[in-house]
Amino acid sequence: MKQFISVNDAGNIDQLVQLALQYKAEPLRDRSAGVGKRIGCLFLNPSLRTRLSTQVAAQQLGLDVIVLNAAADGWKLEFTEGAVMNGQTVEHIKDAAPILGQYVDILAVRSFPELKDREADYAEQIILQFIRYAGVPVISLESATLHPLQSLADVITITENLQAHPNLYQNRTPRIVLSWAPHSKALPQCVANSFAQWINAWHQADLVITHPPGWELSEAFTAGATIETDQQKALEGADFVYVKNWSSYHDYGKIKEEAASWMLTTQKLKATRNAKVMHCLPVRRNLELSDEVLDSPQSLVQQQGGNRVWAAQAVLKSILDSNA
Amino acid sequence: MKQFISVNDAGNIDQLVQLALQYKAEPLRDRSAGVGKRIGCLFLNPSLRTRLSTQVAAQQLGLDVIVLNAAADGWKLEFTEGAVMNGQTVEHIKDAAPILGQYVDILAVRSFPELKDREADYAEQIILQFIRYAGVPVISLESATLHPLQSLADVITITENLQAHPNLYQNRTPRIVLSWAPHSKALPQCVANSFAQWINAWHQADLVITHPPGWELSEAFTAGATIETDQQKALEGADFVYVKNWSSYHDYGKIKEEAASWMLTTQKLKATRNAKVMHCLPVRRNLELSDEVLDSPQSLVQQQGGNRVWAAQAVLKSILDSNA
Amino acid sequence: MKQFISVNDAGNIDQLVQLALQYKAEPLRDRSAGVGKRIGCLFLNPSLRTRLSTQVAAQQLGLDVIVLNAAADGWKLEFTEGAVMNGQTVEHIKDAAPILGQYVDILAVRSFPELKDREADYAEQIILQFIRYAGVPVISLESATLHPLQSLADVITITENLQAHPNLYQNRTPRIVLSWAPHSKALPQCVANSFAQWINAWHQADLVITHPPGWELSEAFTAGATIETDQQKALEGADFVYVKNWSSYHDYGKIKEEAASWMLTTQKLKATRNAKVMHCLPVRRNLELSDEVLDSPQSLVQQQGGNRVWAAQAVLKSILDSNA
Repeated sequence: MKQFISVNDAGNIDQLVQLALQYKAEPLRDRSAGVGKRIGCLFLNPSLRTRLSTQVAAQQLGLDVIVLNAAADGWKLEFTEGAVMNGQTVEHIKDAAPILGQYVDILAVRSFPELKDREADYAEQIILQFIRYAGVPVISLESATLHPLQSLADVITITENLQAHPNLYQNRTPRIVLSWAPHSKALPQCVANSFAQWINAWHQADLVITHPPGWELSEAFTAGATIETDQQKALEGADFVYVKNWSSYHDYGKIKEEAASWMLTTQKLKATRNAKVMHCLPVRRNLELSDEVLDSPQSLVQQQGGNRVWAAQAVLKSILDSNA
Repeated sequence: MKQFISVNDAGNIDQLVQLALQYKAEPLRDRSAGVGKRIGCLFLNPSLRTRLSTQVAAQQLGLDVIVLNAAADGWKLEFTEGAVMNGQTVEHIKDAAPILGQYVDILAVRSFPELKDREADYAEQIILQFIRYAGVPVISLESATLHPLQSLADVITITENLQAHPNLYQNRTPRIVLSWAPHSKALPQCVANSFAQWINAWHQADLVITHPPGWELSEAFTAGATIETDQQKALEGADFVYVKNWSSYHDYGKIKEEAASWMLTTQKLKATRNAKVMHCLPVRRNLELSDEVLDSPQSLVQQQGGNRVWAAQAVLKSILDSNA
Repeated sequence: MKQFISVNDAGNIDQLVQLALQYKAEPLRDRSAGVGKRIGCLFLNPSLRTRLSTQVAAQQLGLDVIVLNAAADGWKLEFTEGAVMNGQTVEHIKDAAPILGQYVDILAVRSFPELKDREADYAEQIILQFIRYAGVPVISLESATLHPLQSLADVITITENLQAHPNLYQNRTPRIVLSWAPHSKALPQCVANSFAQWINAWHQADLVITHPPGWELSEAFTAGATIETDQQKALEGADFVYVKNWSSYHDYGKIKEEAASWMLTTQKLKATRNAKVMHCLPVRRNLELSDEVLDSPQSLVQQQGGNRVWAAQAVLKSILDSNA
């Protein structure tokens, strides 16, 4: 694995999932794999689970870890080629990234979209410029359009639940529903894009995406999935319901007011096959999902969050193996 | 030790002090005790001594350390059960704490009171919810009403000074005076509450608390101590004077204007038995305590600050022992 | 080496450079030198290269590292003797520094000048008070007037380039030009002061400093160098051109408006002996230096940035050796 910014870098998904589950069973099985090497984690935006799970995974592989919060500890980077830098940006990525690449063996970067200029965000110029200039393997800790470490943890979680009930899925393909949820803030499409991309590439489930009309995601990620704007119809017969808000892709960055009816509730889940409920966290309780659902045994959110460590550890180990 | 949020978790105080003094004599004596384990230090508020001394103690026990500054690195947590989260809080502690508990073996949390709603602060809902939901041992790095790692360091410091002059205390009990001090900002009652609680539980000194009328602390912590609103009278015959500001408990969070006469000075100390002077730091010089006192050999503030490491190390080791 | 705040602490510069180059060839050659010891890195101001390279160097020597961002993680320090602390400062350096000194074996501090009161800045009161009160060796990560770790990396870089072309310098002394550059913000004089101080002390090159009239640096650092206000004349025959902005020393902190003609360009470099171009980074592209220069093979900026690690590692090892 030369880098990890989308499912296209994952190679065989099932093999990656199996490696992750081996780490879950035995966290320190490769504790010398990274000794004498170093990962730099660069946060251009806030992070809790990703921040901590990546550090834990790195420590468990013996890697030295250095964390840099770009905004608070350092300064604002410039990403435009040829810019005359007499404004607020202090350093060009062309200068900063190769320096970082000299200091660390693996560079992990988190950077949200601005949600103002769709073309700029979807060009993924920030993570791609880090790849272009850093000279070391780059891992996405969430970029403008994707969040692959989250999606890998999601597939790990689904795999565990399928394996726990083999009889249920003997004669049919699991049905996974990605269900849009209300939110008071404009959020990226990353988690939804990435989840669709991974489930589609995984080929082991039927994916249905449900959202209000006009909230379609980019077909670059959803092609192959069924789109259904009637939430209740989408939920029928679901085995897994992944709940997530995203702002509009078409009317870029727009949020949907008065969408309370899209909150996932226990009542709505009655149409499913006792579906397991997923969310990447942080979740707005009683806005995206009811307390009742989140606090029920159907919720997998804690399992997903825990699996973030094993996803990161599998990716780090694969990167180390390919760049030894 | 299953957790450490007050003196009630300390077990035998003298044994804990002795363990700390063993670490002071030989910092790396248990350097493998925490190998392969991890502490997460979560700061909801700023911290200098507590932040650093806890990291030092953890490193000396071989623990991996991960630090998270919730406000700067992450986001604002919700603590109210059943909240409809359409406002500023991004994640409920019910969701965040168990995730943290999956990532670390010990969770240390710092969280100040808001000083607006006494009942809410004194219910200690933040630290208690971390305990309820984290699923791993929780250590207080100062909570809404108490600061037990500081108090343990204080008792270590007093013990060292008593042992250095055994003759002085052969026939009498040491007299410790906790003396309120002026301050320009509303401060928590934590350090004062906690010091009173520990000295009372320790049973090896007489505790006198002196403050302006109306600045009484909660009897939940002071019961057993002598309360004296005449500072000079309180100081008579004192062996140790612990200087500390706190905002009003009864008129909750109120600060006392024009209280300059309560600053501790060399002149006032003449009534004591050449008392040692303590303060938890940070101290406002020439407001709480005069330069003259702080820079004199009577000051123990540096010794107290240094002892924070050994206090934390003794607590971490005790937690590791009980949760191996 | 008892401390490292200027060239005066460097001892034999060439020996320090050779030690650094040994680390560049073999980063982990002394990986046990700091085991069981700890460096504290205290940032009163932002930092990227210095922050990361110091951590990398420390890790490669086996040191435990603790980072403290004073403003974000802690609070504002007071540096004035005798201050009545009823304002915004929370802790006096007299109290904070010795505590830090109890927690770590080496204290590294970064602190920018305020650029308002020249006398105060040039008295270096912050770094000198840390030295006075910390009780452990202090390393400057850039102080009010100097940046010695940068200068050491610069001399390492120049040495490497001289050694790569021994024939060029057989019969003559290399000519190094420090060339003032435009900038939209008031910057410290640190890097320029420090570079002049080191090149002068190194005695292996002729130093020419060029800047607009009125932008003279303090003679305390430049004495021995040639001052030339005609940039083009200064560049004639140069082997190395170090580009750097600084605000005025004489009209303290003033910036120079409409100075675009001082930007270094490929055209201007034609007068040099195919000079190598240096800059400490971060650099404002197309303001201080043109893209064309920075992206050309003549640019040494990445080499300089990489050499920050080996400079820091040589200094840390020298400090460890003298304070074992």
